[in-house]
Amino acid sequence: MTVDRGPIAILAGAGQLPELMADRVRRTGRDCRVLAFRGFADAALRKKADAVVDLLDVKRALACLQAWRPSAVTLAGGLRRPRPSAVLNAFSAFRNREELSDLMGRGDDQLLRGVVRLLEEKGMPVVGVLDLAPDLLAPAGVQSARAPDARDRSAIETGLRLLRDLSPYDVGQAAVVAGERVLAIEGPEGTDRMLARVRAAGRASMWRRTAAGGVLVKVPKEGQDLRVDLPAIGPRTVAWAAKAGLDGIAVASGRTLIVDRDETVRVCDRRGLFLVGIDLASLEPSSAQDHAA
Amino acid sequence: MTVDRGPIAILAGAGQLPELMADRVRRTGRDCRVLAFRGFADAALRKKADAVVDLLDVKRALACLQAWRPSAVTLAGGLRRPRPSAVLNAFSAFRNREELSDLMGRGDDQLLRGVVRLLEEKGMPVVGVLDLAPDLLAPAGVQSARAPDARDRSAIETGLRLLRDLSPYDVGQAAVVAGERVLAIEGPEGTDRMLARVRAAGRASMWRRTAAGGVLVKVPKEGQDLRVDLPAIGPRTVAWAAKAGLDGIAVASGRTLIVDRDETVRVCDRRGLFLVGIDLASLEPSSAQDHAA
Repeated sequence: MTVDRGPIAILAGAGQLPELMADRVRRTGRDCRVLAFRGFADAALRKKADAVVDLLDVKRALACLQAWRPSAVTLAGGLRRPRPSAVLNAFSAFRNREELSDLMGRGDDQLLRGVVRLLEEKGMPVVGVLDLAPDLLAPAGVQSARAPDARDRSAIETGLRLLRDLSPYDVGQAAVVAGERVLAIEGPEGTDRMLARVRAAGRASMWRRTAAGGVLVKVPKEGQDLRVDLPAIGPRTVAWAAKAGLDGIAVASGRTLIVDRDETVRVCDRRGLFLVGIDLASLEPSSAQDHAA
Repeated sequence: MTVDRGPIAILAGAGQLPELMADRVRRTGRDCRVLAFRGFADAALRKKADAVVDLLDVKRALACLQAWRPSAVTLAGGLRRPRPSAVLNAFSAFRNREELSDLMGRGDDQLLRGVVRLLEEKGMPVVGVLDLAPDLLAPAGVQSARAPDARDRSAIETGLRLLRDLSPYDVGQAAVVAGERVLAIEGPEGTDRMLARVRAAGRASMWRRTAAGGVLVKVPKEGQDLRVDLPAIGPRTVAWAAKAGLDGIAVASGRTLIVDRDETVRVCDRRGLFLVGIDLASLEPSSAQDHAA
């Protein structure tokens, strides 16, 4: 990846990430330009941004980028929420309708791959948090005061196997597992809404006391483009997990963004949840069949 | 399976199924006793039942069954909704707490397996719709005026592969797939609520027009005990699928209960959905890897 000539261009969506990324880039002495999407990027960032563009104003966005001649482009912030399709929409004018509708019939993976392909066709390599701000990624090991117990570890293993087996389907990056029971699999609705669902189900259950608990397992799919689609958690995720009655959260170390790590761990400790980073590379290739009763 | 001496005992939960089963049993000249669960079984059925018992009154339920000396027992009607755990609860007095809490940590499969084991330990073989009323099962082939097109067939194939790959995890029996995109996987909340979720997501999407449609695929898990846990659809399922904007429904022929088949097909035709029964045995063992992009 050539990241040596020209500035880094940040296409800024919602949340703190764009600013954190800009900060990291500048700290390493590189030039940085921020293109903030109106309606998505934080107001504070928009004021400091080099350009503020409507998500649908593709012409201006492309013109900015081409004028800046960036050595690399990164997509940062809430571009998944309100949906990556909104991003694709922004670029749709440059593709024929058939190609677009073909992309739309596929999952998030393919959508984001489409955006990356478009940018790279314009001569702009796409980079991500792993390249620009690796310190924002989850470290390996237990981050919280509480550590997962044997039952939690078994739930984490089940969740990791499940998500790996789901990788070909481009569905969710996350699941909630209690013991050996899968309580929910994330769909396009996202992690927070999946947790809300688990919470609602727990409330409706007459088995609240015996069946309580569970672990949120969130890891990237195999083959997921981590430059544009990095699993993320933050204090809000922890709050939702606590409301759903979960015991803790397991993420892939080095492959998960933790938005505001200090506060995330603080909320974990305050709510009594564990947070653990699992080094996926260290796991032996185990068989899903092992789990069948 | 010995079904020749003694009556067939029907443990009756909610819905029309218990009455339909009793009717089928009597039509074949066999004796039939109905034990209706108060609060679950329909009022009309309760009046005709041989016994009406509280779900939690295990002692009386067992006493009835043992007095009837049934050749076989069947669990019919809404015993999944309000949760199979309620059934287990009814029998929990006969198991130690540790065993119970172990069962509770597992999925529906194991719960129902526990109930079956308990009944069989008492010398009562458990039978199901496949044994007693096979005419209530989905036939193979297209049942509706509309037939699935190429895109629908591709969605059905993806859904079948997905659910097969999920079999070891004891999670849902159903998924919604549009094109190659998985929109939802059923958790413990059940099919209707999953469809409500797809509906809500579709409403929130700016891509409603291009991304509309999809297929509800509902099939048993591999190794699922079809005597007590048969996937079911009915007119209400079709209504929910229509509200979610789906194109149709695919079920496993011979392995899916259609509650009120005539009305189910009528609602399909009225709402413009297809309904197709897939003969799972006829499908070649294809690889999930085929699907990876």
